Amino acid sequence: MADVKIIDVSPRDGLQNDSKLISTEEKVNLVKHLMEAGLSSVEVTSFVHPAKVPQMADASAVLEAVSEFNDLKAIALVPNLIGYERAKEHVLSEVNWVSSATETFNQKNIGLTIDENFSQFVRLVEQAKQDGIKTCFSIAVSFGCPYEGEVSEEQVLSLVKRVKEAGADRIGIADTIGIAVPQQVESLMKKVLEVAGETPVTIHLHDTRGLGSANAYAAYQAGVRIFETSVSGIGGCPFAPGAAGNLATEDLVYLFHRMNIDTGLDFGKLLDAADYAASLSSKNPLGRIRHVER
Amino acid sequence: MADVKIIDVSPRDGLQNDSKLISTEEKVNLVKHLMEAGLSSVEVTSFVHPAKVPQMADASAVLEAVSEFNDLKAIALVPNLIGYERAKEHVLSEVNWVSSATETFNQKNIGLTIDENFSQFVRLVEQAKQDGIKTCFSIAVSFGCPYEGEVSEEQVLSLVKRVKEAGADRIGIADTIGIAVPQQVESLMKKVLEVAGETPVTIHLHDTRGLGSANAYAAYQAGVRIFETSVSGIGGCPFAPGAAGNLATEDLVYLFHRMNIDTGLDFGKLLDAADYAASLSSKNPLGRIRHVER
Repeated sequence: MADVKIIDVSPRDGLQNDSKLISTEEKVNLVKHLMEAGLSSVEVTSFVHPAKVPQMADASAVLEAVSEFNDLKAIALVPNLIGYERAKEHVLSEVNWVSSATETFNQKNIGLTIDENFSQFVRLVEQAKQDGIKTCFSIAVSFGCPYEGEVSEEQVLSLVKRVKEAGADRIGIADTIGIAVPQQVESLMKKVLEVAGETPVTIHLHDTRGLGSANAYAAYQAGVRIFETSVSGIGGCPFAPGAAGNLATEDLVYLFHRMNIDTGLDFGKLLDAADYAASLSSKNPLGRIRHVER
Repeated sequence: MADVKIIDVSPRDGLQNDSKLISTEEKVNLVKHLMEAGLSSVEVTSFVHPAKVPQMADASAVLEAVSEFNDLKAIALVPNLIGYERAKEHVLSEVNWVSSATETFNQKNIGLTIDENFSQFVRLVEQAKQDGIKTCFSIAVSFGCPYEGEVSEEQVLSLVKRVKEAGADRIGIADTIGIAVPQQVESLMKKVLEVAGETPVTIHLHDTRGLGSANAYAAYQAGVRIFETSVSGIGGCPFAPGAAGNLATEDLVYLFHRMNIDTGLDFGKLLDAADYAASLSSKNPLGRIRHVER
């Protein structure tokens, strides 16, 4: 068992906002690269409406293609129950359901109030349990909202409590616009872990202001052991003004390995995956120079 | 009094490695931008031999021009006593002398053993005290060396002890190639601060692997209160293979301000300075998307 677990979200969050259309084959190749580096949990696509995010129009084809990979635990984002119906036609380990910590962002991102969206999630959990599919409830803009500004810890924690009671298999806390700072991360994540109890908690960080790794370290110090990252740091939410790249998987893995924290991943192959992701992305937001002994 | 002090090194460390020759006027404008943001301590140039670093050939002209700025505490890097003789012809607050934590890097960077270089520094301190100029002794590759690999804490601490005894006014600990991780930073910096006692200690971080901010946060937690950074993250040592950009001043300031730690700086004007620095640099290594309320 590794000391920490990393879920790579590059095929979904990394590519969804790219204006260049990436082929299904390339997306599947990216997943293959990630698996070769040892990543088993990968968020491979999103069943969002193709008109909203054209890049994800091939969600079914991607999920069908990666069903060949035996050890893959495929995760798909589903924004609603219609998306879930499409997703569950395929081999799937988990679905990721998104809410926001603030009403304004929820309205802009999903078009529902937090309560309306939550009651849909409760129905999802019932269905998914029957289908043998796990559920994750991700809370966007948990550290700050581009529309409402500051987000109180109470806003996030009350949602975490409800999600836990609803029976989610995982709770995701997301810094969607990359606005968090380490003290804030440490403070909130300690409380989230306490409220979540036995339910696994993930943190999802963006690197908009170069603080992704500082925040990940703070989350680790708070007790978080599951991280959502994106190889090469590609990504950003299409509905969050100013959101830049995700925290790069390889940067976090480098940090952990140098601290003797086992990730179970092959760093050299992870760099290959990062190079491949960067070659697909028309943004490569960090354009980082990589000089690491492989 | 601000809670932390930031020394911007962009005119020196940020530009020295740039293949595009930047004019004296542009360098002076950069210093002006930095001062407008509230930075008073700026490393403006280096009196290295022009054949080694052509970008710094106008060191005298830069230092002469910025002498007009009343509130500026100008710092110049001097690699040897000849450089010091050139530097002291101008208005100058401090000279920055560089050593390495490892013999191999010292040989490649300076062409002397650590002991040979240190005895030159002892002579510098004597001279500078007479001239009313402060001295900083910076220890490169304190967290890892591109040639020797791991650097023991003892290697750094024994040098810190000698530097303190020699009467330096400041001791700089540099992660020249950006290889440090937070736990390492916290461990070493706590010990450095202890050994240094009353002598101010600075940390100088690079962002090669995206860990600059994580390491700065760890240094802050260890008690470090003076940081050397570079606006827009421009920079990298010409003699350190793989060294990428410096930790960006604005990222660190953002981190501090959001934690209610006063830097005494104007964040909006700092972003202007960063934009200007990025416009000069042909590298802009991070190419970061900046979306921050000004």
